[in-house]
Amino acid sequence: MNEIGILNTIKNIIGERYIGDDCAYLEDLGIVITQDSLVEDVHFKREWITPYQLGYKSVAVNISDVFASGACPAYITIALSLPNNLSENFVEDFYKGAEAALYGAKIIGGDITGSADKIFISISAVGKTKNRNISSRKNAKPGYIIITKGQFGASAAGLSKLISGDNSSPELIKAHLEPQLDYNFADIIARTVCEPYAMMDTSDGLADALFKIAEAGDVKAVVDYSLIPHPHNVSKDFVLFGGEDYNLIAAIPEKYISCIPGANVLGKIVDYDGVRLDISGQIFREYSELEVFNHFGENNG
Amino acid sequence: MNEIGILNTIKNIIGERYIGDDCAYLEDLGIVITQDSLVEDVHFKREWITPYQLGYKSVAVNISDVFASGACPAYITIALSLPNNLSENFVEDFYKGAEAALYGAKIIGGDITGSADKIFISISAVGKTKNRNISSRKNAKPGYIIITKGQFGASAAGLSKLISGDNSSPELIKAHLEPQLDYNFADIIARTVCEPYAMMDTSDGLADALFKIAEAGDVKAVVDYSLIPHPHNVSKDFVLFGGEDYNLIAAIPEKYISCIPGANVLGKIVDYDGVRLDISGQIFREYSELEVFNHFGENNG
Repeated sequence: MNEIGILNTIKNIIGERYIGDDCAYLEDLGIVITQDSLVEDVHFKREWITPYQLGYKSVAVNISDVFASGACPAYITIALSLPNNLSENFVEDFYKGAEAALYGAKIIGGDITGSADKIFISISAVGKTKNRNISSRKNAKPGYIIITKGQFGASAAGLSKLISGDNSSPELIKAHLEPQLDYNFADIIARTVCEPYAMMDTSDGLADALFKIAEAGDVKAVVDYSLIPHPHNVSKDFVLFGGEDYNLIAAIPEKYISCIPGANVLGKIVDYDGVRLDISGQIFREYSELEVFNHFGENNG
Repeated sequence: MNEIGILNTIKNIIGERYIGDDCAYLEDLGIVITQDSLVEDVHFKREWITPYQLGYKSVAVNISDVFASGACPAYITIALSLPNNLSENFVEDFYKGAEAALYGAKIIGGDITGSADKIFISISAVGKTKNRNISSRKNAKPGYIIITKGQFGASAAGLSKLISGDNSSPELIKAHLEPQLDYNFADIIARTVCEPYAMMDTSDGLADALFKIAEAGDVKAVVDYSLIPHPHNVSKDFVLFGGEDYNLIAAIPEKYISCIPGANVLGKIVDYDGVRLDISGQIFREYSELEVFNHFGENNG
């Protein structure tokens, strides 16, 4: 199956209103909600990740979506489908890891079922939106600056070490298995920026996120590669196209930059001129020109 | 793994407050939330169910939990993990089925990922609680009556026909693949009963639901088997222990019965005397004495 085709199918059925952002924003309830799944042998290999790390990462990827919306993480539900040959210790360690990634949210329920042979995890997260300005990808406007925090490429480099069985860079492997989130960056933006702004996480890579923001807003993103923070031993391909760093990028009016401590300015939003993304002269006109980060050679959603 | 052991593990980690009911009730947000998963070869067989029916049933089992809480279905998110060999038509048909089970809710997002070989579906549903009295299993009190609507045993009988390859009873098979929910029953109770009441769906069987309500309230449920509505061609084992009918049972103060059209009174709640459940003299002291409905001989959560 082809992911773009499927998304178009779904858009035609349910309408575009809630499609596109990391979370759905339910203004009538004052919440955002998101749901992401992790599937064994698609998103993780059981032999590479401990149950604790799996619990941590499964929750973190959902909390990251709540941060990207600008909301405050409040509640999560966890659905686990587990083969019968796992021990009860697996569940206990998984939940301990999950607790370590809550960033203030509470676990309020979920579902445990059997599974034929693979582990399936699906988590929903609810964030509160009161007194916060909620982001949307489509909000980037010409003149806005593009900001971020955190390092890029470490997670993908760590994954490549795991695939090749190279244990020489434990810090990169840890970046892949236990991604650290930055609450303060999103929190300050959502409580400080009073105008529409765009924010998303870089779960599918930095270039992916920049392209999607540019496309959703019908603008162009221009970024200087030399301004992108990354570990010294990580290749440019990993920095730009590697996913799962779970950093945030935002496009905001320039005047707010002084309120956001530690933000790195990567570039700016300009008028669309046939090009969506320009990274130090490397240009991308169509999404298909991006190398999409692909776990184990399969469609990772 | 043993389900009771796992639930105890989880209770120890996250506390009991939100455990036990079909939905978690978030009073601060005015919502209930639930999440349930369906896993291929545990909850369904691909050769028995059409993609439309699978979409319908996956949503219906979650909407049923919202009804059981007394809330009004508002929003759902759908996470699908699909093997690559499925066609785009699968997704379209699945979503059409999902739309047919919304009972007023809107689909607002979700996640599509790959899967090694099995279909994995996890759905979250949000219900609104404004102007409604929300149920809890633990609310049954001596003197309350036990009421329900709908027929029992049809779904389990239909499943047994599917397993044995017997196509002689299409209405039973349809009851299993496309369970019909009854919005009015839950809606009237939640808007009419002003005192605490217990309600849950019979997803794991009628006897299971009666036992769990009795146990949660530390009371005893006494039911007359002859009052339980069921198709004429369905065995007593299916009526009592067969799951997935997705009817609702409620324990409410007797005075409200005249406000609930079409309700069948099955029995009453009395003081606990060492027995939790008495069905026309068949008594159950411990949960382990119930024959738990078990798909394909595996743990179905």
